[in-house]
Amino acid sequence: MNFDGFFAQELTRLQEEGNYRDFAELERHRGAFPAATCHNGPGEVTIWCSNDYLGMGQHPDVLNAMHAAIDRTGAGAGGTRNISGTTHDHVLLERELADLHGKEAALLFTSGYVSNWAALGTLASRIPDCVVLSDALNHASMIEGIRHSRAQKVIWKHNDLADLEAKLAALPAGQPKLIAFESVYSMDGDIAPIREICDLADRYGAMTYLDEVHAVGLYGPRGGGIAEREGLMDRVTVIEGTLGKAFGVVGGYIAASEKLCDFVRSFASGFIFTTALPPSVAAGAAASIRHLKVSASERQIHRERVAQVRARLDEIGLPHIDNPGHIIPVMVGDPVKCKFISDTLLREHGIYIQPINYPTVPKGTERLRITPSPVHCDADVDRLIDALEDLWTQCQLARRPMAAQ
Amino acid sequence: MNFDGFFAQELTRLQEEGNYRDFAELERHRGAFPAATCHNGPGEVTIWCSNDYLGMGQHPDVLNAMHAAIDRTGAGAGGTRNISGTTHDHVLLERELADLHGKEAALLFTSGYVSNWAALGTLASRIPDCVVLSDALNHASMIEGIRHSRAQKVIWKHNDLADLEAKLAALPAGQPKLIAFESVYSMDGDIAPIREICDLADRYGAMTYLDEVHAVGLYGPRGGGIAEREGLMDRVTVIEGTLGKAFGVVGGYIAASEKLCDFVRSFASGFIFTTALPPSVAAGAAASIRHLKVSASERQIHRERVAQVRARLDEIGLPHIDNPGHIIPVMVGDPVKCKFISDTLLREHGIYIQPINYPTVPKGTERLRITPSPVHCDADVDRLIDALEDLWTQCQLARRPMAAQ
Ligand SMILES: Cc1ncc(COP(=O)(O)O)c(C=O)c1O
Ligand SMILES: Cc1ncc(COP(=O)(O)O)c(C=O)c1O
Repeated sequence: MNFDGFFAQELTRLQEEGNYRDFAELERHRGAFPAATCHNGPGEVTIWCSNDYLGMGQHPDVLNAMHAAIDRTGAGAGGTRNISGTTHDHVLLERELADLHGKEAALLFTSGYVSNWAALGTLASRIPDCVVLSDALNHASMIEGIRHSRAQKVIWKHNDLADLEAKLAALPAGQPKLIAFESVYSMDGDIAPIREICDLADRYGAMTYLDEVHAVGLYGPRGGGIAEREGLMDRVTVIEGTLGKAFGVVGGYIAASEKLCDFVRSFASGFIFTTALPPSVAAGAAASIRHLKVSASERQIHRERVAQVRARLDEIGLPHIDNPGHIIPVMVGDPVKCKFISDTLLREHGIYIQPINYPTVPKGTERLRITPSPVHCDADVDRLIDALEDLWTQCQLARRPMAAQ
Repeated sequence: MNFDGFFAQELTRLQEEGNYRDFAELERHRGAFPAATCHNGPGEVTIWCSNDYLGMGQHPDVLNAMHAAIDRTGAGAGGTRNISGTTHDHVLLERELADLHGKEAALLFTSGYVSNWAALGTLASRIPDCVVLSDALNHASMIEGIRHSRAQKVIWKHNDLADLEAKLAALPAGQPKLIAFESVYSMDGDIAPIREICDLADRYGAMTYLDEVHAVGLYGPRGGGIAEREGLMDRVTVIEGTLGKAFGVVGGYIAASEKLCDFVRSFASGFIFTTALPPSVAAGAAASIRHLKVSASERQIHRERVAQVRARLDEIGLPHIDNPGHIIPVMVGDPVKCKFISDTLLREHGIYIQPINYPTVPKGTERLRITPSPVHCDADVDRLIDALEDLWTQCQLARRPMAAQ
């Protein structure tokens, strides 16, 4: 077999579909984010699609903690968690996370992806006869974890309580059940009815596994996520989160009971057989969490900025999914146009918004996913809106009835 | 179902078997490694089981590069590689890695674990009808990647060319084949016959996938691994490595043809759907690689230190696996004794060597895995040997005929 020929042919197919991805090569400037240099593009740009939602990736507390940890301990952890790689900074961070979510314990992973994959994979495969009830729009990392477990899987309609209940009711009463879902869905920005899902879980004796990756740091009085905001943290069995989005660094975790975390710690291949995160990453993330536990101003300004961008999009009639969260998906609905708009925004306006195409979203729902942050200023918003207005006209894309007309 | 009760029961079982793992909580001191503080142990200890094999985790070039990147760009990458997370530092590191292995391209992952899991999972599942020929002692991350792909899998006897050939010959000539193996095996320290495996691959039209996680930085004139040392880099289809062991930071990668890397980049869920490594991690790793490309002294002193420890173990007759690499597995063969020795070394001698028990190694082959480094001094070696001698007597463990008697 001509392997490289096969790879080339598959890549050509992607290109023809408009789904081949070019990466923008960025260099952020500390203290000046959302400004960055685009090395393979037009030079200076404003980033409008980062998941560093609050700009914590340049917060002095975070950077100082990272510098200090490097000076104190060096670069890497030097081993897996079991073999010389558990550092004091990991332990402190796990305590910080358990406290954030009001849980007995927390367990760190190298990423949010790995935390979902490893925790769901381990729970679903090791709990005898476990069935996983998985929301239809769950993230790839959850899907892969469930798939990996080879446990029975039942998919319920996205955020649909009636469908979830029907599926719970159809399963044998005695079968162990795990309901896996997210709070804020990354691509549509909608939010799950956590309380009602927990009610159903209680009624049917199911565990709940909640991915708060796009909510931690952003919602709740201490940044504990939607479950904190709704006073539901104690009702969810496992809360999973990331240190790489609102907290601005990298890494992932679960927070749950002592026994559950110890179980995953003891059996999850993806936790056991990999080098631990550098102490400086753990220290930086802990500083970020600590800051956002007591400071609400980032969350406040973030909300205002999101509302402002939404209002301005409405004024010019651009179609975006109206959701109660902080993510603004502007719908294009065509991969080639989506990429064209994104390319032109970058080249002609110095605005960087990556087109979101298949497989990240279903074909036909291609979009620009805009993430306003507290570090965007009014002038940034003006430039964004003007550029989008221009391009919508140029591409003859549909508008909604305009609020102002 | 009482979930916590089930977890507790499984954990008790582990404890009874002697396979429950307690993590040593360490704090390394920059510039003083292998010295560290053990926060849940006796205080000051010497680490003898780190995979920071060369002490690069405290090399000034590495730390300076990390500091500089934090000052220049901030903490995290702020997104997945596709959505605002590809930074200049990632691109430079990928170039450095491609050059290190003499390949057209390289692709970064969040860890070596994820690189194996994602790359093998993607190649084996997407190449139509692919069969993976996997060495029996392959690392968990490779096993899980192959398992995840659901491709046909054939396990060949560890490092056994006759068995590999028999298994290749038994497969249909036209079926796409991928041979997956490691160069230096982590737990036994033995080394694969790469040339002969590549000869077989050529003969049967197979791709080769070589995990050099325990070899990169350590072998070859520029630290390219065993394949570099043997002049075989161009014969291996995919070289996989880590940035978290000899390079001293964290992260993983593959190096291969442009098309292969682009294929994995475009289709691997574990690459696509996760936040990119922090620029400071990429910059630190690149500095480490650059240093080890031109400096052979770390490798030289490392080899001498390994030979010294081996000779001293022989003098006192302690059984260790004699291998051509840098890992010294001292065999105990019983999980409870292995843990007892490790506990006593730590408590009474301030020597930290994690016991290696099941599932990391097969039951009955429990061991102390010693990893000498250029930053251990003669006095460290003396203390280690004296302590082991003491404990071997105390535990009445078997010795080999002593060289000196
Ligand atoms: C819902 C969701 N869960 C998990 C992840 C993975 O988290 P991380 O980026 O830390 O790997 C992501 C995105 O990356 C996500 O969108
Ligand atoms: C052979 C082998 N491959 C891959 C890995 C994973 O690499 P990383 O620690 O970077 O995840 C390890 C150990 O951790 C290993 O021993």
